[in-house]
Amino acid sequence: MSTNESYTPPKVWQWNKANGGNWASINRPISGATHEKTLTTGKHPFQLYSLATPNGVKITIMFEELLALGIVEAEYDAFLIDISEGAQFSSGFVDINPNSKIPALLDQSNDTPVRLFESGSILFYLAEKFNKFLPTDLKRAECMSWLFWQMGSAPYLGGGFGHFYAYAPVKIEYCIDRFSMEVKRQLDVLDQHLANNTYLCGDEYTIADIAVWPWYGALVLNRLYEAAEFLDVTSYKNVMRWANEIDQRPAVKRGVMVNKTWGELSTQLHERHDKSDFDERTQDKMSTENK
Amino acid sequence: MSTNESYTPPKVWQWNKANGGNWASINRPISGATHEKTLTTGKHPFQLYSLATPNGVKITIMFEELLALGIVEAEYDAFLIDISEGAQFSSGFVDINPNSKIPALLDQSNDTPVRLFESGSILFYLAEKFNKFLPTDLKRAECMSWLFWQMGSAPYLGGGFGHFYAYAPVKIEYCIDRFSMEVKRQLDVLDQHLANNTYLCGDEYTIADIAVWPWYGALVLNRLYEAAEFLDVTSYKNVMRWANEIDQRPAVKRGVMVNKTWGELSTQLHERHDKSDFDERTQDKMSTENK
Repeated sequence: MSTNESYTPPKVWQWNKANGGNWASINRPISGATHEKTLTTGKHPFQLYSLATPNGVKITIMFEELLALGIVEAEYDAFLIDISEGAQFSSGFVDINPNSKIPALLDQSNDTPVRLFESGSILFYLAEKFNKFLPTDLKRAECMSWLFWQMGSAPYLGGGFGHFYAYAPVKIEYCIDRFSMEVKRQLDVLDQHLANNTYLCGDEYTIADIAVWPWYGALVLNRLYEAAEFLDVTSYKNVMRWANEIDQRPAVKRGVMVNKTWGELSTQLHERHDKSDFDERTQDKMSTENK
Repeated sequence: MSTNESYTPPKVWQWNKANGGNWASINRPISGATHEKTLTTGKHPFQLYSLATPNGVKITIMFEELLALGIVEAEYDAFLIDISEGAQFSSGFVDINPNSKIPALLDQSNDTPVRLFESGSILFYLAEKFNKFLPTDLKRAECMSWLFWQMGSAPYLGGGFGHFYAYAPVKIEYCIDRFSMEVKRQLDVLDQHLANNTYLCGDEYTIADIAVWPWYGALVLNRLYEAAEFLDVTSYKNVMRWANEIDQRPAVKRGVMVNKTWGELSTQLHERHDKSDFDERTQDKMSTENK
């Protein structure tokens, strides 16, 4: 593999399976299922197939927030999709999300099940269905603009900065510089906005916050890419204030544990099928801490 | 600038203004206005501040489609924002879009004007306001999933592939390979889906098509990055069929001309304030062709 300046692309791109760095095994230039496998379904209205990456965590936080309001119709089963094992390429998963990315959701509360993919689409669907966390007044447009802002911006944080700073097999100065600049610009957009707003759309906590926090909140809380010092995140004081405030919400504390397979064992809840699953995890933690 | 493998990032990133390639002058690690300037406003309900990039074209197509249905409440003034001149950093523009990206929209049809940014948010707002191009039945979720799919996917086409294949000051094999693979995967996602669907959400042309066509349609029609041969776009036959079909729509033919400042002069309509503006352009074209 070459990163030197003399490279001339061929006339037609060819797939070289040796390239790609970490995650290379799950990157392909083709789509669709690699194997036949039906997904397991549980008894709740919503069936979530996910992993506790930032995009996955958005949805488990949303469900836990809805349940915290006493909305039992938002009960969900969260099944683990291990993307390092290629579970996103099963025929059952591709039937729900032809794009083979987590999270994917099935709403089986209606006669005709509804499939959903893309975390932004899932957040919007749940917000509209339960009429929560999405303003219906003039703030609705502002909320949707910030929700779409997250969807269009985070690829520069995840697929750009994160990849070239943390995952790529070589450190390429041009790429790290390009994406660091953009991520810092995005942090500054948030910081200036949150200087005058408690949450992204004003006084009200909405799906815009639930979408942005797992990416930019996690970044300033130094939970993504170990890049806090490199990006000087403490200089974004308003983002820090907002990130810490959301981090204290009980529903957020539960949401970030679901479908998590790394970190401290006490922070992992591989699958979630009942609210008592969290209690058991807390008991595990206490028992571990008492040892 | 180094692209060699020995690069070690510093502890804290620093802004080096010499990096960046084409468009480097408009990339900054900070946000906000660089100069005071009020935006001009016209008489129509909607004030669009934009440029005929793929994200800009989504909105002008949407307005032209709405007007083609006879919805006069969707009349709009389209003002040019020249991003190469830094017009997206004026105080007036930043007031509408703190993210300093086109398109930005002001709805002044209500007592309280509503600001909108992010092309996906604008499409959704117009679709909901006029109850057009967004299904209200079970297909609504499918439409929103594909709309969000576009928002999360196109950064890999524009900020990834397009940048490293066409704009970056050096050709870096690793980056071109990484983003070519992803764009081809995305094209294959669309191609397999469009094998069984006339439009992205079935039989109905929706905002999902209006969002995806200016990126992936333009790509297979060889209007982006001169990359058609490199990406072997003709192999995506269903995308080609869909792209050509949408390309024939009169509203699309008008939409792609608005705020366009490059290409054949007869294809450019720098600003749009009245439907007759297109007629004049057509007359220009006829008069040119008759010469």
